[in-house]
Amino acid sequence: MDPTDPVAVLAGLIRCPSVTPEEGGALALLERLLGSEGFTVARPVFTEPGTPPVENLFAAIGVAGPHLVFAGHTDVVPPGDPAEWRHDPFGAVVEDGEMIGRGAVDMKGGIAAFVAAFARYRRRHGLPPGRLSFLVTGDEEGPGINGTAKLLDWAKAKGERFTACLVGEPTNPEALGEMIKIGRRGSLSCEVRVIGRQGHAAYPHLADNPVASAVQIADALLAEPLDGGTEAFQPSNLEITAIETGNPSVNVIASRCSIFFNVRFNDRWSVPTLKAELEGRIARGAAAERLRKGRSAAGYELFWREPPSEAFLTESGGLTEALVAAVVAVTGRRPELSTSGGTSDARFIKDHCPVVEFGLVGKTMHMSNERVALSDLRGLTDVYEALISRWFAANA
Amino acid sequence: MDPTDPVAVLAGLIRCPSVTPEEGGALALLERLLGSEGFTVARPVFTEPGTPPVENLFAAIGVAGPHLVFAGHTDVVPPGDPAEWRHDPFGAVVEDGEMIGRGAVDMKGGIAAFVAAFARYRRRHGLPPGRLSFLVTGDEEGPGINGTAKLLDWAKAKGERFTACLVGEPTNPEALGEMIKIGRRGSLSCEVRVIGRQGHAAYPHLADNPVASAVQIADALLAEPLDGGTEAFQPSNLEITAIETGNPSVNVIASRCSIFFNVRFNDRWSVPTLKAELEGRIARGAAAERLRKGRSAAGYELFWREPPSEAFLTESGGLTEALVAAVVAVTGRRPELSTSGGTSDARFIKDHCPVVEFGLVGKTMHMSNERVALSDLRGLTDVYEALISRWFAANA
Repeated sequence: MDPTDPVAVLAGLIRCPSVTPEEGGALALLERLLGSEGFTVARPVFTEPGTPPVENLFAAIGVAGPHLVFAGHTDVVPPGDPAEWRHDPFGAVVEDGEMIGRGAVDMKGGIAAFVAAFARYRRRHGLPPGRLSFLVTGDEEGPGINGTAKLLDWAKAKGERFTACLVGEPTNPEALGEMIKIGRRGSLSCEVRVIGRQGHAAYPHLADNPVASAVQIADALLAEPLDGGTEAFQPSNLEITAIETGNPSVNVIASRCSIFFNVRFNDRWSVPTLKAELEGRIARGAAAERLRKGRSAAGYELFWREPPSEAFLTESGGLTEALVAAVVAVTGRRPELSTSGGTSDARFIKDHCPVVEFGLVGKTMHMSNERVALSDLRGLTDVYEALISRWFAANA
Repeated sequence: MDPTDPVAVLAGLIRCPSVTPEEGGALALLERLLGSEGFTVARPVFTEPGTPPVENLFAAIGVAGPHLVFAGHTDVVPPGDPAEWRHDPFGAVVEDGEMIGRGAVDMKGGIAAFVAAFARYRRRHGLPPGRLSFLVTGDEEGPGINGTAKLLDWAKAKGERFTACLVGEPTNPEALGEMIKIGRRGSLSCEVRVIGRQGHAAYPHLADNPVASAVQIADALLAEPLDGGTEAFQPSNLEITAIETGNPSVNVIASRCSIFFNVRFNDRWSVPTLKAELEGRIARGAAAERLRKGRSAAGYELFWREPPSEAFLTESGGLTEALVAAVVAVTGRRPELSTSGGTSDARFIKDHCPVVEFGLVGKTMHMSNERVALSDLRGLTDVYEALISRWFAANA
């Protein structure tokens, strides 16, 4: 396999059925490729009670100095119903200029492009003036417990210090070059478990209906927007993803009712300030129900989902500038610097060094017939090679 | 078996395991007992697609003239966990002056008392001056489709005309003689199915969260009391018995969310006027969410549970007066004339003749170790016998 050919590398990776948390041969392939390019490769396995053990890879090359790390994952989500796929989801079939397969854009394609970009750079310029590494996990699509967070700590304990990080997740909505992610909103989830007293629907005075309290609490949570957005971020948003009572009988007042909600929040908030705001809203909702009822109403317990993630913003600096210049040079597009969308492992990396994200077009990620245009894959390889050149030139 | 002994008759009935919809031998026993007292007994079986066939009993004695019908059911709810019972739930064991068994108060005890009351009356006075009948179903604890409603129509088709009806359901909260039911609230149940558009919690503008609409609809349903009560009835009451989303993922905006509610309503409302009021509230809640969102919000569908039951009140008249006098004479208590509590088959009977309800103490109904004090069973037999005397004397 020619490591300078991103199409060959991606085909090899897709043919490894690395459905999370299975390694599926993908990290072994990467180890062989990077080893042959001169990298020192380690394959730490992390474990934690209650989660599957997960294989990871850390590969580094070069001397001390500015250290650029490329972060990503080889695990993929399951292919779903095989009947919905035009070709084997692990077959890497090329059709009409596109390669079809699970992980094509999320994100074996990003890894293949960076492997090829480095191999080309080295053939043209030799080793970069500093250190370059791959930080690759098999636990991005799974619980996220035995992956990037532990791998960062592991590398730090080995003495690695990162200057800047590029995450190769798909970031472009429609066309390569549209969007770089320079931060992410935080995410905080909670279950509000309202505890009432069961009874017969015809005798409500002998019961305490938790659904009535839940409605008031939900209303209080939704009553006002959390904010109007900040300079770099869209407004924070709260979604109630479910209210569940688990009561099949229309003659029975339930004993409990749970509200599940998720907040995507901007840098106006930290996890503690946001929790305080939400706890205040929940308490006001419960008080409104007590007032409406004219007597004590159901109590509640809060279960915050751990870990939450803080919002973060990578200050404009050498990394973002080098990446923007590389994108403009290769694609002719000036990328939007965005903080939109869901979370990624960048939330762990931001505690170690500045981090930005740029990868393929994400349209087909997690869908059947996930696929990448070969022209995009080659374009991304060019962007990554230009980034390596520009970043080391600026930091040398 | 001595038909004048309510304890012996009740023991015989409890030993028939007539868990709804099984006949269990209970109607057969009743047929033998009433047949030996001179009744003409019919055992019609009613069927309907989607429900189990159910056996029923209609037994009548006497000539044309004032016709008093006693209504009840021999089916019982399942005993539940046998380990929670001190004795066999179908054993009719007597302990500390109480007979233990499923159906002891709901309502084989009421049937046994009326059988014994009639047998005693006949031995003392001969046949009453008119007609007396038993209308007994095996489908009161089940779907209520193949029971009392059809049996009434069946009897009407045979030429039977009822002057007044006594239902023998347990009506006393704590002590025999406390309460006669002279009407019942209506009951109306509905599922509001809110239809949204599924999506990722981080991209709410691409989705339409049905839970947010459900919260506003639920709030509108609960916003104002339905009424302040009427002369004979307590205030109407709406309970939301469940909100169910069925969405296990906190990252996903659900596609639908259902609100289930039940209204117990008084004679201020009919089913059509109440539906109109509730549909107005639901529409206002949905409109509030559209306003809050500033764009089209989730739609909804209403699924009314059939059949609803109308509220009814038995006008004070010969039946209630005779029963009150009988209760006062036997128990020394002046019974409250109540319209509280759940529904009963009286809701079907009210369309045929005036109907009141009086039976045992209901405290242990549907519970493990359901039981009746033998003194209550004998007292109820005395009340029923006095009622037969007084009612026929007043109507002759």
